[in-house]
Amino acid sequence: MTITLTSAFLPVFKRALRNMDHFLDKAIANAAARKFSPDVLAQARLAPDMLPLTSQVRIACDAAKLAVARVGGLTAPKFEDNETTLAELKTRIASTLAFLESVPADALDGREDVEVTFPVGRDATRTLKGADYLRHWALANVMFHTTTTYALLRHNGVDLGKQDFLLGSDEAI
Amino acid sequence: MTITLTSAFLPVFKRALRNMDHFLDKAIANAAARKFSPDVLAQARLAPDMLPLTSQVRIACDAAKLAVARVGGLTAPKFEDNETTLAELKTRIASTLAFLESVPADALDGREDVEVTFPVGRDATRTLKGADYLRHWALANVMFHTTTTYALLRHNGVDLGKQDFLLGSDEAI
Repeated sequence: MTITLTSAFLPVFKRALRNMDHFLDKAIANAAARKFSPDVLAQARLAPDMLPLTSQVRIACDAAKLAVARVGGLTAPKFEDNETTLAELKTRIASTLAFLESVPADALDGREDVEVTFPVGRDATRTLKGADYLRHWALANVMFHTTTTYALLRHNGVDLGKQDFLLGSDEAI
Repeated sequence: MTITLTSAFLPVFKRALRNMDHFLDKAIANAAARKFSPDVLAQARLAPDMLPLTSQVRIACDAAKLAVARVGGLTAPKFEDNETTLAELKTRIASTLAFLESVPADALDGREDVEVTFPVGRDATRTLKGADYLRHWALANVMFHTTTTYALLRHNGVDLGKQDFLLGSDEAI
């Protein structure tokens, strides 16, 4: 089947978020086994001036949601950014996935050259064509924040491996 | 311009490797400013049972190189896996990029359904169609290992920010 703008990127976003949800499941189980609250991990950081795990999960979700909405001309659901527990972060992921699952399989097709304007930092915007925004901005953001979530948990002793990153809880592709 | 299998993924691989090269430049400069050998960073790990920075850079390069070679039916250059310094890792990235730059802009086009068999672990292989292998395996690997390289350097105090991850040394997209 010939690749399209939707089929190139939407399945990647969905898989990345599903796998991130699986990291949180393993983190919750690992914390129980080691007898501490899993929510300690929600505030974990790799460096003092880097965002904590809560923000990594939120931004991964939003990067995927907003990319699909902006390129596809759709309205994405808004969330409160008030999660403090891994269970709440799992709900954020589930809500984002529900939106992504609701998107038609051709929602982005043919929208390679649509101009997308998005915020960068607090006071600036940037405009890119749909294809460039998806491959060089949204995709990089989704993968950056899902990988950083993995790295934070791995650094804190959660028993994750590469297969968890690539496949989550399901070996099928 | 309509997206194709090559234009969806090859530019993402090239940008990720160029940006990773930029992380190493900043690491070298940061180590000089803090007066330690940058090559200390080559052995940095986020967890004792996680691969060090040298391996993260090598695997990111190889994931990109092998994906393009396997799906495109091309021969990728082989490297020795003997780098111990950041300068040598920069050479590895440059050699990989030279290969990726040599690939025709339509090298992967129309190869969505070609069957690709690749090693997983030491004694097993997996077979996926070209499009699935690119979006769900090769891309995830390239982004995982470039992000982990960033995370390792960031965790060790190198002054990297999100713009370095997304854009490297060049604001243009």
